Amino acid sequence: ATGADNDLHINQAVVFIEDAIQYRSINHRVDSKSLWLYRWYYSRICQWILGLTITVILALAFVETPSSLTVTSDVRYRHPPWDPPCGLTESIELLCLLVFVFDVSVKSYLIGWEEFCKTKWLMAYILTLVVSLTDWIVSLSFLCTETVRIRRILRPFFLLQNSSMMKKTLKSINSTLPEMASVVLLLAVHLSLFTMFAMLLFARTKDGQQDKEWVGYFRNLPDSLTSLLVLLTTANNPDVMIPAYSKNRAYSIFFILFTVLGNLFLMNLLTAIIYNQFRGYLLKSVQSSLFRRRVGIRAAFEVLCPLEETPANAQELCVSVGDLFQVLQKVEMDPRCKQAIIRSLKTSSCDRLSAAQFQKLFEELDKDAIKQHPPSPEYQSHFMQKLQFVFSHSYFGCLGNVVALANIISICVVLVMDADKQPSERDDFFLGAINCFFILYYLLETLLKILAMGFKRYWSYPSNRFDGLLTGILLILEISTFAVYGFPHPGWRPELMGLLSLWDMVRLVNMLIVFRFLRIIPNMKLMALVVTTLLDLVKNLRAFAGILVVVFYAFAITGIMLFKGAVVPMGNIRIFVPGHPLHQEAVLISKKKKCDFLAFLNHFQTIFIYHLCYLLSFNLICRWAKIYFIAWWLISSVIWVNLFVALLLENFIHKWDRHCHRESLSDIEYQRTVELMFRDVLEEPTEEELMERLHQHPHLHLCR
Amino acid sequence: ATGADNDLHINQAVVFIEDAIQYRSINHRVDSKSLWLYRWYYSRICQWILGLTITVILALAFVETPSSLTVTSDVRYRHPPWDPPCGLTESIELLCLLVFVFDVSVKSYLIGWEEFCKTKWLMAYILTLVVSLTDWIVSLSFLCTETVRIRRILRPFFLLQNSSMMKKTLKSINSTLPEMASVVLLLAVHLSLFTMFAMLLFARTKDGQQDKEWVGYFRNLPDSLTSLLVLLTTANNPDVMIPAYSKNRAYSIFFILFTVLGNLFLMNLLTAIIYNQFRGYLLKSVQSSLFRRRVGIRAAFEVLCPLEETPANAQELCVSVGDLFQVLQKVEMDPRCKQAIIRSLKTSSCDRLSAAQFQKLFEELDKDAIKQHPPSPEYQSHFMQKLQFVFSHSYFGCLGNVVALANIISICVVLVMDADKQPSERDDFFLGAINCFFILYYLLETLLKILAMGFKRYWSYPSNRFDGLLTGILLILEISTFAVYGFPHPGWRPELMGLLSLWDMVRLVNMLIVFRFLRIIPNMKLMALVVTTLLDLVKNLRAFAGILVVVFYAFAITGIMLFKGAVVPMGNIRIFVPGHPLHQEAVLISKKKKCDFLAFLNHFQTIFIYHLCYLLSFNLICRWAKIYFIAWWLISSVIWVNLFVALLLENFIHKWDRHCHRESLSDIEYQRTVELMFRDVLEEPTEEELMERLHQHPHLHLCR
Repeated sequence: ATGADNDLHINQAVVFIEDAIQYRSINHRVDSKSLWLYRWYYSRICQWILGLTITVILALAFVETPSSLTVTSDVRYRHPPWDPPCGLTESIELLCLLVFVFDVSVKSYLIGWEEFCKTKWLMAYILTLVVSLTDWIVSLSFLCTETVRIRRILRPFFLLQNSSMMKKTLKSINSTLPEMASVVLLLAVHLSLFTMFAMLLFARTKDGQQDKEWVGYFRNLPDSLTSLLVLLTTANNPDVMIPAYSKNRAYSIFFILFTVLGNLFLMNLLTAIIYNQFRGYLLKSVQSSLFRRRVGIRAAFEVLCPLEETPANAQELCVSVGDLFQVLQKVEMDPRCKQAIIRSLKTSSCDRLSAAQFQKLFEELDKDAIKQHPPSPEYQSHFMQKLQFVFSHSYFGCLGNVVALANIISICVVLVMDADKQPSERDDFFLGAINCFFILYYLLETLLKILAMGFKRYWSYPSNRFDGLLTGILLILEISTFAVYGFPHPGWRPELMGLLSLWDMVRLVNMLIVFRFLRIIPNMKLMALVVTTLLDLVKNLRAFAGILVVVFYAFAITGIMLFKGAVVPMGNIRIFVPGHPLHQEAVLISKKKKCDFLAFLNHFQTIFIYHLCYLLSFNLICRWAKIYFIAWWLISSVIWVNLFVALLLENFIHKWDRHCHRESLSDIEYQRTVELMFRDVLEEPTEEELMERLHQHPHLHLCR
Repeated sequence: ATGADNDLHINQAVVFIEDAIQYRSINHRVDSKSLWLYRWYYSRICQWILGLTITVILALAFVETPSSLTVTSDVRYRHPPWDPPCGLTESIELLCLLVFVFDVSVKSYLIGWEEFCKTKWLMAYILTLVVSLTDWIVSLSFLCTETVRIRRILRPFFLLQNSSMMKKTLKSINSTLPEMASVVLLLAVHLSLFTMFAMLLFARTKDGQQDKEWVGYFRNLPDSLTSLLVLLTTANNPDVMIPAYSKNRAYSIFFILFTVLGNLFLMNLLTAIIYNQFRGYLLKSVQSSLFRRRVGIRAAFEVLCPLEETPANAQELCVSVGDLFQVLQKVEMDPRCKQAIIRSLKTSSCDRLSAAQFQKLFEELDKDAIKQHPPSPEYQSHFMQKLQFVFSHSYFGCLGNVVALANIISICVVLVMDADKQPSERDDFFLGAINCFFILYYLLETLLKILAMGFKRYWSYPSNRFDGLLTGILLILEISTFAVYGFPHPGWRPELMGLLSLWDMVRLVNMLIVFRFLRIIPNMKLMALVVTTLLDLVKNLRAFAGILVVVFYAFAITGIMLFKGAVVPMGNIRIFVPGHPLHQEAVLISKKKKCDFLAFLNHFQTIFIYHLCYLLSFNLICRWAKIYFIAWWLISSVIWVNLFVALLLENFIHKWDRHCHRESLSDIEYQRTVELMFRDVLEEPTEEELMERLHQHPHLHLCR
């Protein structure tokens, strides 16, 4: 029984350490079978299947019936999108939903009933699944002819609940809401007071010529509100004030006051509030991650402690190094960390580890990964050594940059000269010839660098990888161009022969050359800092991007459902409000169609509120459209952009401080995560806190 | 001789203390006559005259010949502006310049030759004056017919050099420039690479129907650059991508990538950099202000120390209280501070003050002014006491707010109902009647509050002052309405009888009622915080506003000079490039004329770059206009707005922290200046630093 017990303890320790590595909570069942299930559930393949399922269910929107995913977005020219038969997408959906049902039941079983009652996310998950399945049954029983499909709006929830970072971020956003609400309220008061002012100021006059402002923008309350709301987005900025301004310059004071107060003060105050609130919460969430990691490590220590120890000796609990080796063998972790831990375990002379030593051993996990570049090859020949010195010198890199710049400039000159030429007059000889020489130089440069640094060392620098890959692609393109079209000669502009015309080939080569020019960035110090900050930001931004995807998705689906009938091709106009002469308008809107999935990603909203509501200002659809677009503007443009700015400020300021402190160590590349960013300000949890948390564990019952 | 010496020392001490109060440098001459000149130069009347002169010389632009200050901005309707005869504005200008010459000579004399050589601002001042006077002579010798007047662009310099806060802020901005330049460079690289990409991507095709994107936006290099630069300002946001997008949705990736990288990342990075850099420099400048104050106080102490003291006793230098009283009598300072210092001087028992005690005495200057409201009157009668309790209770204020809200809502309802009515159908009876009752209630409320709180206490609250003043104005308006038009009755819409028509009177009353509604703000906690932050910001923003005025002025004058002939009234079109059909365009531009002084204040630039350059894309003027507007956009929109955001973030975060700490003291009103904002983080200068600075003084020679 002791052997089995020992095995159980080792398995428990393995799982706890894996929890610590992944910042997971340790509050799950710890009996043998549950541990096996737990490790299986969190194994790479299972999580990969879950991720795939989420991707598939989200991607379904692109092929489902009211989708508009066609090559062109112009409703006049585009072909009708593929209409899958009823039951095809639905059966894929059912499969996905069943995977989720399985997921939620495993998760619920693993954490046990007591924890389940505390986890609102899991309950919401179950609720979402129940609603989705019900909606699915309703949908199939109507043979896919029903229009309102709630389950589509609920889909992004599956993405949300699967990422702990996204849940944390959402919590942070949630706790900022009261402050944001106060500013939004202030914005609303500002807007409504100025609207009343505007209606009193730009009232209808007896002289029909004089009230252009009234006719255009302040005809009634909804119009006035819309005009000023759009002014807040600066989309109609000078237009709205031009009629009044040309009547009397003093009217501009009203608009300037409104813009300065609303746009400059209140909007930026929102940034300040979000930055201020968010700063603290991000730190807090990172702190709680650290706490989870320490708890996991401590729990592993506790279960490894042999129970037979006498109470007298209990003050100095110890873990045998042999047990730890067994655990480490089983744990799935970054090989670099594992190596480091085993190495330091072997070098330490003692046979048993105390809690502090155990904890210290695993601090390797928190450390930056310092990347060591492989050494250059050592050549015997004196000539080779000289070559090596020359071609690994930084001046050689600079020469490469200068050549790349020259190439860019030559392309630019050709573009400017060819700008107004007819395609038939164009001669690709000059560009083809110089590009050929430049690409030869790039190839030579790459080969010489590899010779000087050795392939391993060359490849270990990201900038070289970028460079080498692009040079390779350029070479292949150039060779295939020559193979198909022959060598460049004056009047070198043959017709289409292969997959791409010569002109397209040359364009592609030029684009790649322009892209390759980005290699200069690491050579400029401040620019490198800026770019690394941006790259960091992208890493830390995944949670935000996820939430943005969730919001986009929900809005897109809602938009498709709301405005499905509103936009129709020109040949066959069906108007919402009968008898309204909306031909022209329908075409305009169809061109800038909102309900379209990809179009969302740009800042379309301000222009759209304006156009759609201006054009359709007496239609029923406009009421809904207005509310929809205002909500969209508030969430995407105001709140999300401000969150982004807050994160960027946070990131940049930390980075900048670090840059100033560690200027000397600039050669070492650090891994950058949100955890590491805050490492200097994080507090280590105390022994008491850790033990208290361990004693609260619902399944693990420590005897001391 | 000792008496005269003593007088000199007392005068020196007075001037040093005044320097300390005003945060001025003490490096000026300290002999008797210079001290008299110095005090006279810095007296209120002299500084007021200087300020007036600066205002006058800046205001000259509104009446000088190429000014466009007329009531309407529409070139078709407006009367020709007043054209002052040659010599009128020029002679006023000469007067102002002579005042400046006097100012610069006094200043230079006072600081002495040695300091003068170190002060670049003074040298620039002299240079500006020399250039201005030369230009003035040239201008008069041409009888005001010359077009280029350099002195006008130089005018804002006089405003700049007169404010030490503005000079400091400019220094801060100046030191942020390298970092800003790196981001702007990155932006330029981003723009140029994407431009090349765009030109390769949207090249001319053989099919004329397919290259709408090329025709519209990417015809040649300057066009492409402009299109993408305007996209960076989001002014042409969906329009620029619509042709490509309707051809193939995938083209949107290019635009999304450009917008996300440029607009979201790089632009916000600029904010982050400016915030980060600027934060430090603002603190630094406040720190140097504190240092100046401490040095001034210390210098006063040193000159008051009797010289006869024996060297043995020199370690504990002391100042007699009597001397200090004499000094305090002469010093011009805030009476509240003076009172506090004299009070604490009288309560202290000792006869002589050490340096530390002396310094501590003047710390009163750094303290917040705590405002004490006068007490309420104490009534004898029991009934009056009850009345007092009722009407000074916060619920009474709430009732007032509710009534004000009801009034607003009633006005809003009437506005909505009357929205589409012809002016002749309008009946002002209903609104007149209810407004009359509401105003009577407001009057009653004010009187009751004064009764309960006493007039002095009532008036000491800013919110009451606001309330009372507006109620008074409303009452006067209402009484004069009744006096002219009689009491409201159905069909109450007489024609114009007095200065304003009844309709205008009612509108004015309504506007004031809407404005009065702002009194609710202090009653909502978070809103009050937000509003006080905004008010703080306005106080701390004076230096920024000054610099903005300087930049505006220079740009406006340059614009007037550059584009003087470009915009002409419709009746008489003279086109820049002969034979170009620009009729329509000229009207469009004249409507949105840029060169106009007031129009600058709004965010016109993005739309203007777009319109002007799009419309005139083949004209010579456009090249200049483009460069001008891009510079304008960079300075006003990008840099200034970011500086503003930085200041707002700084202010708000400090304020918020303080708000959270001192929640209990919320009743006390603090004076808020940029000095007080940083008080907790400022470092006190050490004794050694102070003495070192004093020994470097060019005119004061301390014997120890």
